[in-house]
Amino acid sequence: MAVTRLGRNPMYQQIADTLRAQIADGTLAPDAKLPTEAELRAEYGVSRETVRRALGLLLNEGLIVSARPQGHFVRRRRPMVFRPQAEFRERPYTPEMDAFMTEFSEEGREPRQEIAVAIEESPPDIAARLHLKAGQLAAVRRRIRYLDGEPFNINDSYFPLDLVRDSEIMRPESITRGANAVLGELGYQQLRALDELHVRMPTPEEARRLDLGPGTPVACHVATGYTAAGQPVRVAVSVLPGDRHIVSYERIRDDENGEA
Amino acid sequence: MAVTRLGRNPMYQQIADTLRAQIADGTLAPDAKLPTEAELRAEYGVSRETVRRALGLLLNEGLIVSARPQGHFVRRRRPMVFRPQAEFRERPYTPEMDAFMTEFSEEGREPRQEIAVAIEESPPDIAARLHLKAGQLAAVRRRIRYLDGEPFNINDSYFPLDLVRDSEIMRPESITRGANAVLGELGYQQLRALDELHVRMPTPEEARRLDLGPGTPVACHVATGYTAAGQPVRVAVSVLPGDRHIVSYERIRDDENGEA
Repeated sequence: MAVTRLGRNPMYQQIADTLRAQIADGTLAPDAKLPTEAELRAEYGVSRETVRRALGLLLNEGLIVSARPQGHFVRRRRPMVFRPQAEFRERPYTPEMDAFMTEFSEEGREPRQEIAVAIEESPPDIAARLHLKAGQLAAVRRRIRYLDGEPFNINDSYFPLDLVRDSEIMRPESITRGANAVLGELGYQQLRALDELHVRMPTPEEARRLDLGPGTPVACHVATGYTAAGQPVRVAVSVLPGDRHIVSYERIRDDENGEA
Repeated sequence: MAVTRLGRNPMYQQIADTLRAQIADGTLAPDAKLPTEAELRAEYGVSRETVRRALGLLLNEGLIVSARPQGHFVRRRRPMVFRPQAEFRERPYTPEMDAFMTEFSEEGREPRQEIAVAIEESPPDIAARLHLKAGQLAAVRRRIRYLDGEPFNINDSYFPLDLVRDSEIMRPESITRGANAVLGELGYQQLRALDELHVRMPTPEEARRLDLGPGTPVACHVATGYTAAGQPVRVAVSVLPGDRHIVSYERIRDDENGEA
C-alpha cells in the first residue's frame, strides 16, 4: 500500500503562507514593517529557528527585504517600463500604450549612465547572431543605467568591428541621436529586429553590479537588428532586474490595417 | 582610515565560481554529471559543509539539478518559443523570425492541456484592466499546458462575464478556432493588445503546479486585448517558467513600410 502524506505543511511554511497572503491582499502594504521575530514566535508559539525559516522563504521569493537592525519590510516595487518598440518608433502606436506609459512615467527621476567601450571576440551566442567568423572582432558598448543614483539595468551592445571602426560608436560617451542613427549614417540602417527574452537568476557579477537583493531574478532581453538585406548589424543585450522593470509591447491586428 | 576588504572570496564561492565557469564555457555540458561531493572535497581540500554550500549556490541559481542518489547534473534547458504576436498573425512577419521558429520548433513533442472554467470576482489588477466595476464578474478559463507529459506553463484568460455568458468560452474544452475567434463572432473582435512582462520568483502554488526546481524564476506575461472602440475584452495571464521558455517578438521599422 502506498504511503500517503498526511497532515498540514510544516509550521514555517504555514507562517510564510499567512504573511504571503497578507502581502498579496495588501494587509501588509509595500514598505510596511513585518511583525518582529519575537512577535511571530509569540503569535505562533514556535522557535526562533522556525520564524527565521519562514522569513527566509519570503526573502528568497523576493517578497520582503531585511534591514537590520530595524527588521523586515514588504518590498516596494517601483518598476520602469522597458518598451523595445521605442527603438523604431518613439511614440506609442495605440491609445492603450499611451495611457500605460503615462501611468509608469519616470518623470522627476534622474537618469545617468556609465559607458565603457571594448574591442573583443564576442561570446559564441553573440558571434552567431552577428554572423561573425572565427577571429572577427566585435565592438562592445557596455552601459550601466542609473535612476536617482540606483543601478537600474545593464545594456551591452555588440557591433561587427569592421562596420563601426571609425565611428562615434567607439567613443565611451553618450550618443545623443543614438547608436542606431550612427549605424544608419554608415549605411547599415536597421529595418527589422528579433527580440528574445530569457528569464533566469542573475550571475553573482550581475547581482553585484546591479545591487540585487535575494530572490531577484532578471529578464535578459536580446535584440538583434537587421538591415533590409538581412545583415545583422547590432545585438543589444539588456539585463533587467525583475523588481525594477516591466517589459511592454503593443500589438495591432494586421489583417485590418496593415500594421504589425 | 577606511577598512578595505582584503583577500579572496570564501572557499565555497570560489568552488561555485569554478563550476559556474565550466558550465558557461561548456566544459560541463548540459546533462553532464558534476564531480561527486567526495571528489570536490578531495580536489579543494575542504569540508563536506563547504562543498554543499557551493552546490547550494548553483542549485539556487538554477544552473544544476540534484538527482539523489546519483548526484548533481548540469541543467538542460529545452526552451519553447512563446510568440505573443502569433495571436494576431500566425505566420511570422520577418525571415529572421521564420528561421528562429524553425530552430526552436516543437516538432515531435506531444502537447496536451487541462482546462477549467470558473466564474468569479477577478483580482483587483485584472478587474482594473477589464474596466470591471465592483460586483461585475469575470469568466476565467484556466489552462495548464503540457509537452510530452511535463507541465510547461499556466495560462489563465479572463473575460467580462456579460460578454461571454452564453458562448463556448464557458465550456471546459479546447476551442479549436481559439477563444479570440469566439469573441469576434460575439461582436468583440480584438484589434489591439497591450503586453506586460513581469519577472519574479514563483509562488509555492505555481512551483507545485509547474513542478519547478529551485532557482527557477517565472515570466508573467499579461496581455490585454481591446476592440476597435478601446473596450478591453480579454486579459490573458501566462506564467512561463524561465527554464522552459523564450519569449520572442519581431519588430519592423514603421516609417519605411507602414508596419509596426
